[in-house]
Amino acid sequence: MPNRIPVVEKILSANDRLAAENRARFDAAGVFAINIMASPGAGKTSLIEKTVAALKDRLRIGMINGDIATSFDADRAAAAGAAAVQINTGGDCHLDAVMLQSALPQLDLSALDLVIVENVGNLVCPAEFALGTHKSILVASIPEGDDKPYKYPGMYRGVDAVVINKIDLLPYVPFRLDFFKKGIEALNPGVTQFELSCRTGEGLEPWLNWLLAQA
Amino acid sequence: MPNRIPVVEKILSANDRLAAENRARFDAAGVFAINIMASPGAGKTSLIEKTVAALKDRLRIGMINGDIATSFDADRAAAAGAAAVQINTGGDCHLDAVMLQSALPQLDLSALDLVIVENVGNLVCPAEFALGTHKSILVASIPEGDDKPYKYPGMYRGVDAVVINKIDLLPYVPFRLDFFKKGIEALNPGVTQFELSCRTGEGLEPWLNWLLAQA
Repeated sequence: MPNRIPVVEKILSANDRLAAENRARFDAAGVFAINIMASPGAGKTSLIEKTVAALKDRLRIGMINGDIATSFDADRAAAAGAAAVQINTGGDCHLDAVMLQSALPQLDLSALDLVIVENVGNLVCPAEFALGTHKSILVASIPEGDDKPYKYPGMYRGVDAVVINKIDLLPYVPFRLDFFKKGIEALNPGVTQFELSCRTGEGLEPWLNWLLAQA
Repeated sequence: MPNRIPVVEKILSANDRLAAENRARFDAAGVFAINIMASPGAGKTSLIEKTVAALKDRLRIGMINGDIATSFDADRAAAAGAAAVQINTGGDCHLDAVMLQSALPQLDLSALDLVIVENVGNLVCPAEFALGTHKSILVASIPEGDDKPYKYPGMYRGVDAVVINKIDLLPYVPFRLDFFKKGIEALNPGVTQFELSCRTGEGLEPWLNWLLAQA
């Protein structure tokens, strides 16, 4: 009797299958896509505003914004010069690949180089749903406190880059940058990091250059 | 043939049933219980630290802390003088009545006047799960930005009080207090509000007095 050799394959979840389809659409159009995640108010929209304003003459940028309610963020991205689409999740605490897939036809991907997806402000749930973007970016912020990597490990573990925003507030809040970075390093060794202030513009250049090198 | 009169009752969800059981346990023990919710880093733990330190000679305080990982917050509450219990949700983005119910036996309710439940840092999901506490408190913070009531209406709509923390940062960040308050008022008219800074201590008295008047 022949031995049976179990073949273990990763069975893709429905979300992962749709994420792969989204990725294929981005790739077919030659579009580089990023998924920006953060706590509420860490500065996702400000980073997108600054990025679009700085790069709009070099990259054709589209923006898909996920929010529980309002189109405030898509409006801000559009004002900065991006083609912007709003997804209102109607209560859902994260974007998933289905929502992104239904939003994609509203953007002409063939006319874009970079698509920025702004997720719902949440340090937990968005980390669990692949969207099909090429890179995931976490925006952290100084006033959130230096313990966040330790308390939200799933988010810090899964991202390709961490943008530490609001460094202009370092003099005014207790924040141990070394403790914070030690937490990141333990969860996601060698992950790309940027320290900047969207408000003052300090530190934006390395982030913009990194993005240009990928897109 | 008799007319059939449909009797429509609210069918309690499993979570709501357990929340009612939790409430009954608090009431039987003469304990006032509050559920503190916020974005990551808005200052839930700082508010609890300051509250425990200020009131520990007048109220016997127990604290139940929900976090994805670590016992940092329960440690801080214990250091401030509370009987502290940690719930690690192991990835879950909110506390629910089941988790609270399984933590309650670790506190001697008969020896307490006030139980403070610190929820997972999240402006979306915790609003959907009643715990059985008497009051829900939202901690907002200035650096999160003034658009949060508009973008996270479910959370702002459901709470009994809003504590606006980090007012010491008002000079350093763009924040329209009137726009923020207009959003709160539209969602939750007349809700109790406090403006304070856990860091400087400014504005803590009204919050402490409100709590004392309830507990």
